[in-house]
Amino acid sequence: MNRVINNPDLVVEDMLRGILAAHPELHAAPENPRVVSHAHARQKDRVGIVTGGGSGHEPAFIGYVGRNLVDAVAIGEIFSSPTAKSFFEAFKAADSGAGVACLYGNYAGDNMNVKMAIKLAEREGIRVRTVVANDDAASAPKDEIEKRRGVAGEIVMWKVGGARAAQGATLDEVIASARKAVDSTRSIGVGLSACTIPAVGKANFVIKDGEMEVGIGHHGEPGILVQPTVPARDMARLMLDRLLPDLPFARGDKVSVLLSGLGATPVMEQYILYGEVAEYLREAGIDIQFSFVGNLFTSLEMMGVTLTLTKLDDELSACLAHPCQSIGLNVGDAR
Amino acid sequence: MNRVINNPDLVVEDMLRGILAAHPELHAAPENPRVVSHAHARQKDRVGIVTGGGSGHEPAFIGYVGRNLVDAVAIGEIFSSPTAKSFFEAFKAADSGAGVACLYGNYAGDNMNVKMAIKLAEREGIRVRTVVANDDAASAPKDEIEKRRGVAGEIVMWKVGGARAAQGATLDEVIASARKAVDSTRSIGVGLSACTIPAVGKANFVIKDGEMEVGIGHHGEPGILVQPTVPARDMARLMLDRLLPDLPFARGDKVSVLLSGLGATPVMEQYILYGEVAEYLREAGIDIQFSFVGNLFTSLEMMGVTLTLTKLDDELSACLAHPCQSIGLNVGDAR
Repeated sequence: MNRVINNPDLVVEDMLRGILAAHPELHAAPENPRVVSHAHARQKDRVGIVTGGGSGHEPAFIGYVGRNLVDAVAIGEIFSSPTAKSFFEAFKAADSGAGVACLYGNYAGDNMNVKMAIKLAEREGIRVRTVVANDDAASAPKDEIEKRRGVAGEIVMWKVGGARAAQGATLDEVIASARKAVDSTRSIGVGLSACTIPAVGKANFVIKDGEMEVGIGHHGEPGILVQPTVPARDMARLMLDRLLPDLPFARGDKVSVLLSGLGATPVMEQYILYGEVAEYLREAGIDIQFSFVGNLFTSLEMMGVTLTLTKLDDELSACLAHPCQSIGLNVGDAR
Repeated sequence: MNRVINNPDLVVEDMLRGILAAHPELHAAPENPRVVSHAHARQKDRVGIVTGGGSGHEPAFIGYVGRNLVDAVAIGEIFSSPTAKSFFEAFKAADSGAGVACLYGNYAGDNMNVKMAIKLAEREGIRVRTVVANDDAASAPKDEIEKRRGVAGEIVMWKVGGARAAQGATLDEVIASARKAVDSTRSIGVGLSACTIPAVGKANFVIKDGEMEVGIGHHGEPGILVQPTVPARDMARLMLDRLLPDLPFARGDKVSVLLSGLGATPVMEQYILYGEVAEYLREAGIDIQFSFVGNLFTSLEMMGVTLTLTKLDDELSACLAHPCQSIGLNVGDAR
C-alpha cells in the first residue's frame, strides 16, 4: 500500500483539514468538525439542502457543498455513515426556517442515522423531509427497488434539489423535484480492481487482473456478474443493456449522462467509454442533453467506472442548466 | 493490465471521439482530427492561445481549451509530441490576425515541432511567439534551468496567458505575462507507482511498493531520489524544501498552490497532502491566495502527486481570478 497519508486512522480528519484550507467558502460547524456548510447556506426563505455519507468517495459528498447545490454535509468515516448527531447538526447548519431537504443514499446506517436526526430536529422545530436515492440498478431486482443502493445518481439529485431551492421552491416542491430526479435515474458500475481502506491495510475484496465485476457497489458490494474484461465498446453496451430497459429509457427520450471514474481509471479511459456510450445512445434514438465526465463519485483508488442516465423533462433540464459552483461540479453562468 | 479501452493503438482517437461528443463547444479541425479548438476561438483582435503535447495527461492538454483559456490545441500520441503540421494548424485555428501565443512545455519533440510549425506559419503571415514552460525544479540544476521540463505549471501559464488575451493585451504583452508566470513558478513531482502505455502493455519503469521517487517526470523520467515512502507531512516538507529555495519563495510572498494527482491517487489523499503543504507554508510566512487541487495534469494511472507554487504579483493575481471555463479548470464569474 503506497499512499499519501499520515496516520491511517485519521485520514478523514487530515483530509478535512486540507479541504477547509483550500476552500475558504466551506466552514466546519463550531463544535462538530464532521459537519461542513457553505458560506451561502441559510439564505433567508431558502430551503436548505443537506446530504451526508461515508468518506472515500471524494469529491462526494463534501465536494458538492457549494453555490446552488448542497448547503451542509454530514461526514462519516471511510465507507461508514455519519452519526445521527452529525446529520442533525447539518440540518441546523442548513435551515433558515424554510425547512431542510435531506437528499442521501440508501444504506442501512444512513437510513437509521437520518431517522434519528429527524427526531432531534423535530424537537427543535426544524422541518426535515428526505429523498433516498436508489439509482443503482444492479443492486436489487426492479420489483425490490426500495432495496437498491444510491450511487452517483445522487449528484443529479443534489443538482436538481439545489437548483429548485435556489429558484425559490418550497420544501414540498424541492422534495418532489429531487424525488423525480431519483425516479428518472438509473446507474450501474463496473469494477476493474479493488481498493484498500488505509486503516485496514488490505483490500476486503478481490478483482482478478483481466476480469471485471459488473454491477459492483461503491464499497465493493458484490456485483451481478464477474467476467473477462471486454473492450470499452462492449462494456458500454453491457452497461446500457442493463440500464435502458430498467427505467425504461426509450427512443425519443432526452437524457443526461454522468460517467464517473471510480478513482484510478484515467480520464482518458473515461472519455473512451463515454464515446461508446454516446454512440450506442445515438443508435437507440436517445438524445443526450447534458454530459458530465470525470472523477465525480469515487471509491478510493478503485479502477472502474459508473454510468448514470437520467430521463429529462423540461423541469429537470432547467435544473441541470442552472448555474452552480462547487469542488465537484461547476455549471457556468455564461454557458 | 485492466483497462477501459478498445484497440490499444487507437486510444487517442477513441478518447477524442468521446471528448468531442461530451463537449459540443470543442471542434476538431476539418482536415486534422489532432487539432481541437474552442467555439470562442478567433475572436476579433484577440491574441490566440495555443498549446500542445502528448496525450495521457488528461485533462491536460485538451481539457484547458476553453473560455478565456487555451483557444486551440495540438494533440500527440501518448507521451509523444504532436506533429509540426498539427501545431501549425492549431495556430491557424487560433489566429484572428492579432497573432498567436504558443505556450508549451520544454520537451525535445515539442521544441522541434513548434519551431517547424512557426516557419510554416510565417509563410502564411501568422505571427507566433512562444513561451516554453520549464517549471519542473527537479529536472535539472538551477544553473541549467533551460534544460528543465515543463509540468503542471503549464496550467498557470495557460490561465495567465488566456486571461491577458481576454483582457485585450497585445501579443507581446501576453507573452510577457505568460513568461512572468513561468519564471515565477516551480513544480516537483513524487511518484508512488509506474504507469502503463496501453500499446506497450507493461510499465517502462518500476517503483517498488513502499518506495517513492522524488522528482519523477510526467512520463516516468527518473527523479533525483528513491527512498522509502514517508507520511504525507514529510512528503510535503520534502517537496517544499526543494521548491522554496529554488525560486526562491520568501516570508511575506503571496502564492498560488496547484496540487495535482498523477492519475490513481485518490482525491482524499490529494487534500491530505494539501493540508500539510498549507501548514508548512503558513509556518514559513507564505500567504496562499489561490488553491487548485485535483487530477489536473496526470500521467495515465500513475500514483503520485505534483506540487506547483507560483509567486504572485498584482498582475498574476488578477489573471488567476479572471473567470474561465473548461474541462480542467473553472473560475466562476460570481466568486
